[in-house]
Amino acid sequence: MKQFAIIGLGSFGLRMLEELYEITQEIIIIDKDKEIIEKYKDKAQAAYVADAINEKALSKLIPEEIDAVIVDLGGKIEVSIMVTNYLKKIGIKNILVKAQTDEHGEVLSMVGATQVIFPDREAAKRITPMLASSLLFNFMPISENLALAEVQANDYCLGKTLIEANLRQEFGLNVVAMRKVLHDDFLFINDPTYIFLEEDILLVAGTEDGINKFSSRSNIKEKQAIGDLFRSFFPKR
Amino acid sequence: MKQFAIIGLGSFGLRMLEELYEITQEIIIIDKDKEIIEKYKDKAQAAYVADAINEKALSKLIPEEIDAVIVDLGGKIEVSIMVTNYLKKIGIKNILVKAQTDEHGEVLSMVGATQVIFPDREAAKRITPMLASSLLFNFMPISENLALAEVQANDYCLGKTLIEANLRQEFGLNVVAMRKVLHDDFLFINDPTYIFLEEDILLVAGTEDGINKFSSRSNIKEKQAIGDLFRSFFPKR
Repeated sequence: MKQFAIIGLGSFGLRMLEELYEITQEIIIIDKDKEIIEKYKDKAQAAYVADAINEKALSKLIPEEIDAVIVDLGGKIEVSIMVTNYLKKIGIKNILVKAQTDEHGEVLSMVGATQVIFPDREAAKRITPMLASSLLFNFMPISENLALAEVQANDYCLGKTLIEANLRQEFGLNVVAMRKVLHDDFLFINDPTYIFLEEDILLVAGTEDGINKFSSRSNIKEKQAIGDLFRSFFPKR
Repeated sequence: MKQFAIIGLGSFGLRMLEELYEITQEIIIIDKDKEIIEKYKDKAQAAYVADAINEKALSKLIPEEIDAVIVDLGGKIEVSIMVTNYLKKIGIKNILVKAQTDEHGEVLSMVGATQVIFPDREAAKRITPMLASSLLFNFMPISENLALAEVQANDYCLGKTLIEANLRQEFGLNVVAMRKVLHDDFLFINDPTYIFLEEDILLVAGTEDGINKFSSRSNIKEKQAIGDLFRSFFPKR
């Protein structure tokens, strides 16, 4: 079974504890707040009240062969940088650290973080395109040239079959799955002769430009209210 | 042009300002910290030093017909609940609020938030499956029954063509796009006779079970080091 340590039970550290607890019982938690350790110790294999800035203590509490260490020291930027560097010196292979700003993230990478996490930046990047378009419900950048989005069927594809619409050719979009307005569950489209309806919400992959082009091409203005009402966010779980 | 307001320039509020600034210049920012308003006022159409808890002030500063208001009051849970409720009373249509905990989110929805944002929970849900598998690089729950993941080609599909591998049949997975280890950019697979190589990383859509089944089925143990090295996160931008 894999073993993990979480240093700092901030908002992100606690969420990681919840999620990791689903897959393993071998979790070490470290926080300098005694109350918080008391509250969550039942979910951990070992729970320590300790100041993470103490390099000697850290090296005693965390086995070198641990699978990953997650660091969330909230706004304490300097401390998180020092702790990351200690973990690197101890020889930890995977060091995931939550960063406050881009600059903070850069320094964390330099001193030894193998993965820097920016939850607020990621959420903002996802939400913003949706605020700009009424046909776009969800948006997720995946790589430089690929994004995933939930878009309501536009006037171009209504009444056409999946094959006739040929969104690959027209917008450079790959239709991954589909759901109906009012329903959360996506299904694969198994029938290429399926005809698009106005209530269809497509999960598409493509460039940001392709997605914008698709989601801005519509005369379905009166449906905006439905879109607003059922607009929702990744992840649903 | 769409118009937005951001109440509270916390870590998420600031990220939203950065992103929204790319699509509109009509942004109103409100924070009770004079220094922070001074620092970011150039990115805003209007910048106010004000206590958001003042209902009268809020109704004067925020036009009723504004497209959306984003609220990030950090750890001030009670204040964020009251402000959300004021915004609802003013008649704001879209109210996006960052929540600290699930309970906080529930209350926010009850008092008027149209969208509750949980950046830390979302990041944790995305990262955890990757920590459990060495073939899984990225994971994103999309709906109750659908997730998106980056998985390295497993021993089942190596040497087979896209058609022969038939991941739809075998694992219930839809291959959305592909990239090579060492490269960030995903491309669509245009040739159904393409033969999978060990260096291929597939972007697949399917159930969580299907993805786990695929990403745990491998004898490619010696490649874990490569996986760890190039493991990366959504979003890349």
